[in-house]
Amino acid sequence: MRQAVLNLEESKIREVANAGMGRDDVLPFWFGESDEVTPDAIRQAAIAALQAGETFYSHNLGLPALREAVAAYTSALHGPVGAERIGITSGGVNALIVAMQTLIDAGDDVVAVTPVWPNLTAQPRILGAHLRCVPLRPDAQGAWQLDLPALLAAITPQTKLLIVNSPSNPTGWTLTRAEQTAILAHCRQTGTWILADEVYERLYYKDDTANGAAPSFLDVAELDDRLVVVQSFSKAFLMTGWRLGYLIMPPTMTQEVGKLIEFNTSCAPVFAQRGALAALAQTADITPPIVAHLRQCRDTLVPLLQTVPGVETSAAPGGMYAFLRVAGFGDSLELAKRLVTEAGLGLAPGVAFAPEAEGWLRWCFASKDVGRLGVGVERLWGWLAARA
Amino acid sequence: MRQAVLNLEESKIREVANAGMGRDDVLPFWFGESDEVTPDAIRQAAIAALQAGETFYSHNLGLPALREAVAAYTSALHGPVGAERIGITSGGVNALIVAMQTLIDAGDDVVAVTPVWPNLTAQPRILGAHLRCVPLRPDAQGAWQLDLPALLAAITPQTKLLIVNSPSNPTGWTLTRAEQTAILAHCRQTGTWILADEVYERLYYKDDTANGAAPSFLDVAELDDRLVVVQSFSKAFLMTGWRLGYLIMPPTMTQEVGKLIEFNTSCAPVFAQRGALAALAQTADITPPIVAHLRQCRDTLVPLLQTVPGVETSAAPGGMYAFLRVAGFGDSLELAKRLVTEAGLGLAPGVAFAPEAEGWLRWCFASKDVGRLGVGVERLWGWLAARA
Repeated sequence: MRQAVLNLEESKIREVANAGMGRDDVLPFWFGESDEVTPDAIRQAAIAALQAGETFYSHNLGLPALREAVAAYTSALHGPVGAERIGITSGGVNALIVAMQTLIDAGDDVVAVTPVWPNLTAQPRILGAHLRCVPLRPDAQGAWQLDLPALLAAITPQTKLLIVNSPSNPTGWTLTRAEQTAILAHCRQTGTWILADEVYERLYYKDDTANGAAPSFLDVAELDDRLVVVQSFSKAFLMTGWRLGYLIMPPTMTQEVGKLIEFNTSCAPVFAQRGALAALAQTADITPPIVAHLRQCRDTLVPLLQTVPGVETSAAPGGMYAFLRVAGFGDSLELAKRLVTEAGLGLAPGVAFAPEAEGWLRWCFASKDVGRLGVGVERLWGWLAARA
Repeated sequence: MRQAVLNLEESKIREVANAGMGRDDVLPFWFGESDEVTPDAIRQAAIAALQAGETFYSHNLGLPALREAVAAYTSALHGPVGAERIGITSGGVNALIVAMQTLIDAGDDVVAVTPVWPNLTAQPRILGAHLRCVPLRPDAQGAWQLDLPALLAAITPQTKLLIVNSPSNPTGWTLTRAEQTAILAHCRQTGTWILADEVYERLYYKDDTANGAAPSFLDVAELDDRLVVVQSFSKAFLMTGWRLGYLIMPPTMTQEVGKLIEFNTSCAPVFAQRGALAALAQTADITPPIVAHLRQCRDTLVPLLQTVPGVETSAAPGGMYAFLRVAGFGDSLELAKRLVTEAGLGLAPGVAFAPEAEGWLRWCFASKDVGRLGVGVERLWGWLAARA
């Protein structure tokens, strides 16, 4: 077996979850997933497709109707995007690896902004690329910030690809429009492709954009820029388990991605795609309540956490996570395991996302019952108080 | 974009299908898919899961219950196989690329037996491997045969991986147990992994095996052999559009594959996996009629084709294809396009599968209505007669 694969870390989040195995009383906030079932209208559309016998292969790039619907949805958010720029994939993570397969050869130089969910840094390693990470840093309030000059200095004409996830999992850090413009201008000069994982774009809580979504590279880029934006149905439509994502890419790239989808998964199931079509048709009814609820979750959790002695955290502009650290606990994996077994509180260790996030914890606040968040904070507080 | 990706051929089958666009009267036999809807019991299980709200992430390696069911199904066919050797993937094609990601680095030497469906030769190229193809050859009756000494000579200690698809798409050629034993013994000596695409194993029409299935490497290998067998729910359960496959691998490999599934698609949808569980629970009722029907299709089509002047073909032991050539027509892509546009007959050109299959045509005989096959033969005969 390949050394590059043997070297890939097992999920440290899974390691914490395993530590809680057999305990019924753990409150799990460790995974990046809401505990709400997919809205019924979406499920009924998939059921209808199954009843109708839609059990055959689809086009590699997805149902033409779904590509059109995604293009219309994207255009409404970011200005004109044609269906010829859309490819439907088996999840956002699959869109990411297909994009990387299109763009990077083994040995190529890749830059990524970290801390970030581990998949984004594992994928270039699987493809044999050389990965250079540019870390965000927490400010005095515990809000993570980009060192833009350091990022631009890291991107040279040798850099084939920049990978950036904004709003970010796990920190919630979100690129500003000015930062996107500067990064795009720089990458145009170096000839570097930008792979923007924007799956949390609708989960944005600042009121400084016309469309209500986080700033997107699509808002500042031209049609022929070396830009691939990855999206997913998981977050804005509560469809994690459906494994449906998509790419928005330059028109010249679509044919190549179609070939690679054939060789990776061939297509996404048609009946699942029918669910996505229903989701997009009803996004005006589905997505705003989801975002409003998540905002309520964030605005419940973060102030509560800030009242806990020794806890440092900041309300992030986007995403569905609080990122926090606890004074006196430097080993996030050990802390997370102890919180599971001793406090019944399931959080993800920061070290799972980058070395610079050691000492931090990720708390997914996508909870149907907002009260669960308060119970979680009480458990944290009680556990810390017993050790003070 | 990568030269390796730009170099990948567009599907020549798709090119023929495109030539038939807008024609309502084409009989399509070009794709490797039955025209029968998935059995109702399987669809109802997925529907029940959707109704029950099973819309969340699954384990990377698949539902534990499904891995157990696959292990039991495999054990019944091939002797004891434990669930710890099973990984569920988003289609057989996805199982193949995940296996290759586990086993081959860019620059590694890979051997493949051809003609074969294009995905199997495209995947190592995507991963940057050096691919060497060992061609089968048609005998005087038009049955494709392996030159075993040539294959063994091609596999050296430098060969990381052997890729072999048996029963074969497109030729129907099927490895004998003796050939499998010889290949396995040789690969043990060279340290070469065997990646066996056995998705057509149940579609086997010789009555020389105890389990009724095609000979499998699982029947001759030991637990710790460097062997990965890829399977799919598509063929034996009419589940092409569900995108569900699986790997059977050495126990030491499972953890690595779990990591790679996380980074490729994360998991297959749970509601689709519930369909697969229903399929396996009822395989005794579902699969034998499918295989009996396909045998009837083969035994209808091939003798009819053999009566057409100038046509050469042989009843293959396995698979769901007739592979034929027509005297006087050396360019299979041109012939396939003309048959579409001039005869309303949709076949796949042999050149899509390997240079040595130039001049041949693939006819998928998985037709719910056996009579359609006869109509297709009439169209071929009529078109040829008008040109005689």
